[in-house]
Amino acid sequence: MQPAALKALQQAAGEKNFSQEACDRLLYATDGTCYRHPPEAVIRTVDAAQISRVMAACTAHRVPVVPRGAGSGLTGGALPVAGGVVLDMAGMNRVIEIRPADQVAVVEPGVVTGDLQTAAEAKGLFYPPDPASTAFCTIGGNVAENAGGLRAVKYGVTRDYVLGIKAVLPDGRLFKTGGANLKSVVGYDLTRLLVGSEGTLAVIYEITLRLLPLPEDRATINAFYSSLEKAAQGVQALLASGIRPVACEFMDAYCLKAVDGYAKLDLPQADAMILVDLDGPPEVVARQSGEVAAILRQAGGEPVHQARDRAEGENLWRARRAMGPAVYQHGPGKLNEDLAVPLGKLAEMVKRAHKIGQERGLIIAVFGHAGDGNLHVNVMHDPSDPKQLEEAHQAVTDLFAHCLSLGGTLSGEHGVGTTKLGFVGAETDPVALELMRGIKKVFDPAGILNPHKKLPSAEAMS
Amino acid sequence: MQPAALKALQQAAGEKNFSQEACDRLLYATDGTCYRHPPEAVIRTVDAAQISRVMAACTAHRVPVVPRGAGSGLTGGALPVAGGVVLDMAGMNRVIEIRPADQVAVVEPGVVTGDLQTAAEAKGLFYPPDPASTAFCTIGGNVAENAGGLRAVKYGVTRDYVLGIKAVLPDGRLFKTGGANLKSVVGYDLTRLLVGSEGTLAVIYEITLRLLPLPEDRATINAFYSSLEKAAQGVQALLASGIRPVACEFMDAYCLKAVDGYAKLDLPQADAMILVDLDGPPEVVARQSGEVAAILRQAGGEPVHQARDRAEGENLWRARRAMGPAVYQHGPGKLNEDLAVPLGKLAEMVKRAHKIGQERGLIIAVFGHAGDGNLHVNVMHDPSDPKQLEEAHQAVTDLFAHCLSLGGTLSGEHGVGTTKLGFVGAETDPVALELMRGIKKVFDPAGILNPHKKLPSAEAMS
Repeated sequence: MQPAALKALQQAAGEKNFSQEACDRLLYATDGTCYRHPPEAVIRTVDAAQISRVMAACTAHRVPVVPRGAGSGLTGGALPVAGGVVLDMAGMNRVIEIRPADQVAVVEPGVVTGDLQTAAEAKGLFYPPDPASTAFCTIGGNVAENAGGLRAVKYGVTRDYVLGIKAVLPDGRLFKTGGANLKSVVGYDLTRLLVGSEGTLAVIYEITLRLLPLPEDRATINAFYSSLEKAAQGVQALLASGIRPVACEFMDAYCLKAVDGYAKLDLPQADAMILVDLDGPPEVVARQSGEVAAILRQAGGEPVHQARDRAEGENLWRARRAMGPAVYQHGPGKLNEDLAVPLGKLAEMVKRAHKIGQERGLIIAVFGHAGDGNLHVNVMHDPSDPKQLEEAHQAVTDLFAHCLSLGGTLSGEHGVGTTKLGFVGAETDPVALELMRGIKKVFDPAGILNPHKKLPSAEAMS
Repeated sequence: MQPAALKALQQAAGEKNFSQEACDRLLYATDGTCYRHPPEAVIRTVDAAQISRVMAACTAHRVPVVPRGAGSGLTGGALPVAGGVVLDMAGMNRVIEIRPADQVAVVEPGVVTGDLQTAAEAKGLFYPPDPASTAFCTIGGNVAENAGGLRAVKYGVTRDYVLGIKAVLPDGRLFKTGGANLKSVVGYDLTRLLVGSEGTLAVIYEITLRLLPLPEDRATINAFYSSLEKAAQGVQALLASGIRPVACEFMDAYCLKAVDGYAKLDLPQADAMILVDLDGPPEVVARQSGEVAAILRQAGGEPVHQARDRAEGENLWRARRAMGPAVYQHGPGKLNEDLAVPLGKLAEMVKRAHKIGQERGLIIAVFGHAGDGNLHVNVMHDPSDPKQLEEAHQAVTDLFAHCLSLGGTLSGEHGVGTTKLGFVGAETDPVALELMRGIKKVFDPAGILNPHKKLPSAEAMS
């Protein structure tokens, strides 16, 4: 970065919010991936006016800018791959207001998702999106990635709760979209265009979110299966039954063994587990809980457990929650892909993933959100072994090919970032991609905002 | 239109699909508004390849094109205000497939919404969006307008069910967005950008829609109130109770009198009526139906009716369903605006609407979807009286100003079309509007697709 640019940025940010210290450059070089890209400087954002000044300076000096929340993303979205500046938004973490009469919350992007959930609950309200990282991820990051999570089967994803956004364009201009209305059809839907745009269109500084009333009660059921087909039949029968579960999670044999070893849960030997959460009025939850158990048993589930209370329910969830750390322990290397396929293709996708693993001599562990077709496929390998590493990357390419041939998508909730960039062209219609590049230019003609993310460049694809 | 353009269009469309006959020009000059704009020609679309040829010819000859479904829109979206060609899509009305395992339907745009609902129900599935015009409006029109309707409180709007779109760009290129996956974050969300774009970005020729399992049971409750405040308290208390109604409809005193006179329902004298629909498992519906009745009674509802069966439920709905024809009968003129406000501002908006009516010497009848803040505000007048007509239009301007001052939006579900075009600038952030115009240019650089709709031109606003 040129000294003039540095000086302008320092001035725009305010001296105490600007850092080029080595430890900061190290800290902001990483995210939830294994890659490292140190920024040239870090700016802690404080308000819209400051972000506006910073962005105008970045555009004037053609400095790349990467907005960052908790840095917990899994596809490199917060990595400054082109150098430049990281905007650390985590300090802008006020829940500005919760308005029970309007059933909305207005928040800054740095609010931790779990903190918003707690604040909403204190007023008898409910923020349904529930990414696994809810204890540390931020709403801003959730909006940038259109985060999904555990309750998406019944409640949808982040997009379904974003009513309004205030943001800064790369040239420094402020703008707002939407508001606190549940319905509005005035203008094009820029709000949902910004959701999932991975920080490539604008820097979001305020978000209005829809809240729901808190559900009255909750129940948990799990079932173990001796084959994938039976488990998939269980999921299909459940989804066709008219019951709308909150969560319908799946774990394969490898995942079950991993968590059993890690968390000492004494799980039954099985090829698959289905874990179902219900919520709603207590008498429905009680009755449907029995129905779900019967449906899962009918499909061949054995044993099937129906938690009798919340403590037992939490116990059933322990296997699923231990998944992340358990698989990490089994590493040492893991390529984690969040494929999604149409609901009816779930078992086929899991079988193909296992077959790819056999062909490549690697364990491929599959778990995920069966109720919405979103699978976390983990290619386990030893990254210090060049041959295994190569096979692991080849396995991911195979996985993507099979996923697309089943009408699936390369990312259900993690985003494209940099790690999936090379595969976007295989999924996305080329004309649609050209339209997306056109939209990017409308928002960011200088191309300074989170460059080399989300959309492959035309050159890279030719 | 130049003879060369006509010839090219005729050839592109196929002779038997092309018409310039006077009766067709008359037929396609109207929609659900009172305005008339005859097209120069009408083309009946048959498939993607034909639409592609037609669009390429229209771009080459700079002929304006207006896609049209049932022509039931209420803001002029299907009117050829700049002349040119109307694309009649109503003949493309195949339900291509319903895939129960994937819980999706793939349809052509001309499918009548009610027909899709029936086809889905035959397979035990449910297409929730339910515009009042469901018996004749088309899915294509619903997608173009992001139609809402009676079940939006619980089930959301059309946008929430559109998973994938195939469309033709103005220059004739085909493209697709999304697919049959419930979750996908690859690329910008062009699917939801097209939803609600009112036929100004692309011509949609295939839509993949999410379906849900059919609810098990349904119940209906109504309550009458001696004041708006009490009715609004009833709505607030209901929404805060944790019960998620399917529908929560509101009618004011004028509407009640109008339907009572029209449909001879012998309704109690009241200032407001609330009508609530519930669905779900039978024991919840039964229990919650009692709870809803108690909540509405507590807020001052008197009498409150709980339908004991579906026939009684349909009877309670008669008042709401008679609303459209009853108000038409009371005309002769009606300006119907579909304002939406944040949930907590509902009573205030209704009161202000009535006050504006008093000030302007007009009856302003309000009914609508109280559960999502979306109100149908009807300014009754005699259009043959120039003074009344002027007052009616002034009243609409007043309504919009009050709606915006309450944080509301000028259209919850009808769209902007031409009738609200002059007011978009008052609601929409100017920078956001510039971004929208940029997006329009990306899709339609020649500006031939449904011109003078949705977005006010920069010139018109300066």
